[in-house]
Amino acid sequence: MEDKFSEWYLKILEDAEIIDIRYPVQGMLVYRKWGFFIIREMQRYLEELLEKNGHEPVLFPVLIPEDVLEKEAQHIAGFHDQLFWVTLAGDNELERKLALRPTSETSIYYLFSLWIRSHSDLPIKVHQSVTVYRYETKHTRPLIRGREFLWNEGHTAFRSVEDAEKNLEDIKEIYGKLINNLLCLPYQVNKRPEWDKFPGAIYTNAFETIMPNGRTLQLATSHNLGQNFSKVFDIKFENEKGQHEYVWQTSYGPGFGRLLAAVISIHGDEKGLILPPKVAPVQVVIVPIFFKDADKKEILKYSKEVEEKITSDGIRVYIDLSDQQPGAKYYHWEMKGVPIRIEIGPKDLKGKKVTVVRRDTGKKSELNFSGLSRIEDIFKDIEKNLRKKAQKKFDEKLFKAKSEKDLEKYLGEGIVTAGWCGKTECAKPIESRGTILTLEENPERCTICGKDGKRIRVAKTY
Amino acid sequence: MEDKFSEWYLKILEDAEIIDIRYPVQGMLVYRKWGFFIIREMQRYLEELLEKNGHEPVLFPVLIPEDVLEKEAQHIAGFHDQLFWVTLAGDNELERKLALRPTSETSIYYLFSLWIRSHSDLPIKVHQSVTVYRYETKHTRPLIRGREFLWNEGHTAFRSVEDAEKNLEDIKEIYGKLINNLLCLPYQVNKRPEWDKFPGAIYTNAFETIMPNGRTLQLATSHNLGQNFSKVFDIKFENEKGQHEYVWQTSYGPGFGRLLAAVISIHGDEKGLILPPKVAPVQVVIVPIFFKDADKKEILKYSKEVEEKITSDGIRVYIDLSDQQPGAKYYHWEMKGVPIRIEIGPKDLKGKKVTVVRRDTGKKSELNFSGLSRIEDIFKDIEKNLRKKAQKKFDEKLFKAKSEKDLEKYLGEGIVTAGWCGKTECAKPIESRGTILTLEENPERCTICGKDGKRIRVAKTY
Repeated sequence: MEDKFSEWYLKILEDAEIIDIRYPVQGMLVYRKWGFFIIREMQRYLEELLEKNGHEPVLFPVLIPEDVLEKEAQHIAGFHDQLFWVTLAGDNELERKLALRPTSETSIYYLFSLWIRSHSDLPIKVHQSVTVYRYETKHTRPLIRGREFLWNEGHTAFRSVEDAEKNLEDIKEIYGKLINNLLCLPYQVNKRPEWDKFPGAIYTNAFETIMPNGRTLQLATSHNLGQNFSKVFDIKFENEKGQHEYVWQTSYGPGFGRLLAAVISIHGDEKGLILPPKVAPVQVVIVPIFFKDADKKEILKYSKEVEEKITSDGIRVYIDLSDQQPGAKYYHWEMKGVPIRIEIGPKDLKGKKVTVVRRDTGKKSELNFSGLSRIEDIFKDIEKNLRKKAQKKFDEKLFKAKSEKDLEKYLGEGIVTAGWCGKTECAKPIESRGTILTLEENPERCTICGKDGKRIRVAKTY
Repeated sequence: MEDKFSEWYLKILEDAEIIDIRYPVQGMLVYRKWGFFIIREMQRYLEELLEKNGHEPVLFPVLIPEDVLEKEAQHIAGFHDQLFWVTLAGDNELERKLALRPTSETSIYYLFSLWIRSHSDLPIKVHQSVTVYRYETKHTRPLIRGREFLWNEGHTAFRSVEDAEKNLEDIKEIYGKLINNLLCLPYQVNKRPEWDKFPGAIYTNAFETIMPNGRTLQLATSHNLGQNFSKVFDIKFENEKGQHEYVWQTSYGPGFGRLLAAVISIHGDEKGLILPPKVAPVQVVIVPIFFKDADKKEILKYSKEVEEKITSDGIRVYIDLSDQQPGAKYYHWEMKGVPIRIEIGPKDLKGKKVTVVRRDTGKKSELNFSGLSRIEDIFKDIEKNLRKKAQKKFDEKLFKAKSEKDLEKYLGEGIVTAGWCGKTECAKPIESRGTILTLEENPERCTICGKDGKRIRVAKTY
């Protein structure tokens, strides 16, 4: 971890007890409550959207037999070096090696070929939230690049290529809601260049954001698989004319660990986490404050009334009754990113009100006891503010390179729009500095040689 | 699968699309929507209870290094034959084998030793809902005995043995709610005899029910681990006097697949599933009925109004607009176990009412449109009825054996109370016929030799 941001990132993961990196298998993490809770909220939100869209929840085994995984040649070629293999059970050598799923196209499509017979069986859209396994040889980074990671994967089969395309549009909208509505994160969708698509796909869309150090982070991908898998897994349906056709397929998935990494990094500040209210494990923390012991009983009683009222509105609230000083409590819960702190002192008790402090702005205000239901409105305002601030930072990290010098200057700061003529010798100085995220159809002069070319977007990536 | 019940069981798993047993790895299942949804409801219900009780959600890696797994000698001895091992990653032989977790005591307690320092760190209670892996050499049965199964596992550390015992009482209550309140299943808690406890435990409690074929099914277990694991994982805390002590631990888990198997088997009938309303993927199915095309538009419009009203009450409703005849629809949704069917025909339309048919009793009644919110009450009544019927069947399967002849007669019919003098030669004729579920302190004459002994419970088990 080379920069100041990365130092901050590792420290907050530990201080806020999001994960524990000391598990004795490299690249595999222990998710603690503060991290796992946020991921579970994301997962439930996404699953609800997918199921409203007609996806059915399923669960497939983690082990995929070698012969099933090998059916699609490009697919296995793309994952070959990354597979963990089970070869032994008890004291028995297995006759057939079993891979830990790196993704589930092959195991799911094996079953699709048994489930699909007629046009009336289509469309099929399924999803599962599971862990997947990739033996990364690159440097692992907590939540960003690991050897076990948590995601949701969607898999489909359609009658026509048009239906498949329509589904990928639905997914753009659904992932957009997850990333921007729920998590308040800005993002960009980039269609990957030919050489960087998912193994076995016709094309791949990537949803990416920009981290504080200027590197892009791929949060999710979606793939048009065409008939590549249906042909090798023999997934056919009888159409209305009685003819047999191969189905058209798509697959997609966001990585929950990466989404969490982006939430932490993009919203956080020098005090620690700033969590979007909808996913915060604790949404409101109550800190009772008493200067004299005489006040204590009354203030505690009132604090509990406030807690009860807020809880009854369906809000996750925690009342901090520890022996710490108020200042230490503020510091702790700010670091943990709790969206709203409620302070209750003698004046608040007297006035039947509370003091509300927002984590995102630090601003103090007052609410009457009878107006506590306004907290939901404050949450909405916090979301709006987080979204706006994050978008501003994102927009400031978009650059345009007119020359190789510009490229040198901006790469590492964010996403750089440039031009490329298509020749290998001009790709070299670009790719030595960053990764081509996408190659568009729009004409753009080559940033290296100045000849006619196409527009590209380039960035240093995670 | 030897009996009529088992035939019925396999058929309903397929017909209702609960799971698919055709996945090409033995003992590993594909959970389809109708099965996975029910499991997810169980999981969320349980997680909520555990978290209210102070458990924190966590997620640990699926892979456990050999040296960590081997620390507790009895534990590894108990699981040695059942482990799946990852030995290969990409083309590299791993230096250290990694096991797929058969349960997570060892990996979690490795971290506990890093998390626990002082008495103020205690108690720790964590839980995770995950898949675990056991290379079963016994005959596998779908959802009952598999090589990959879904469970929730709880793990704790306490300052005292009393706190640990109190926790096991809490768990009895929580699992009781899951099994009986949510799933309407009867059960019995049996403290396992010494020779049948969890590897590494001081003692084990088992929660079991009786299947229609008289075999018992273990739904959950809880274990008092004493200081067995804390001593080998060196989990110590500094007490208030500044002395270092080993923590006291417990662990526990219900199997979601087995709970689902019990729901299917115990509540089901010759028509198929009967699902407890709270876990049913579809709680109400609406079947519009029209004899003349003239009625169609009006009836459909009214049916959608009914659907909307019920949905707004938070109920999962499906309106069956397929081309099937009403009779075929009834048959299908009865087989799928949907708790309530609403029929809407010309008379219902005219009277601004609906016809309600209960899956559990088959009884028809009418509800006015304005009285649709009464469906929640019907659900409660269905739950009460399911619980009562299942309890009656359970109670009818409890026997007392006064002689070896009785044992012969009743074993295979349910749980048999008998007596045992403690001698091996008297255990033989008992254990050749069944399994000793528990050995109680109560005196009871030996069913074999007639001498003084203790009370036992025996059954044929899954």
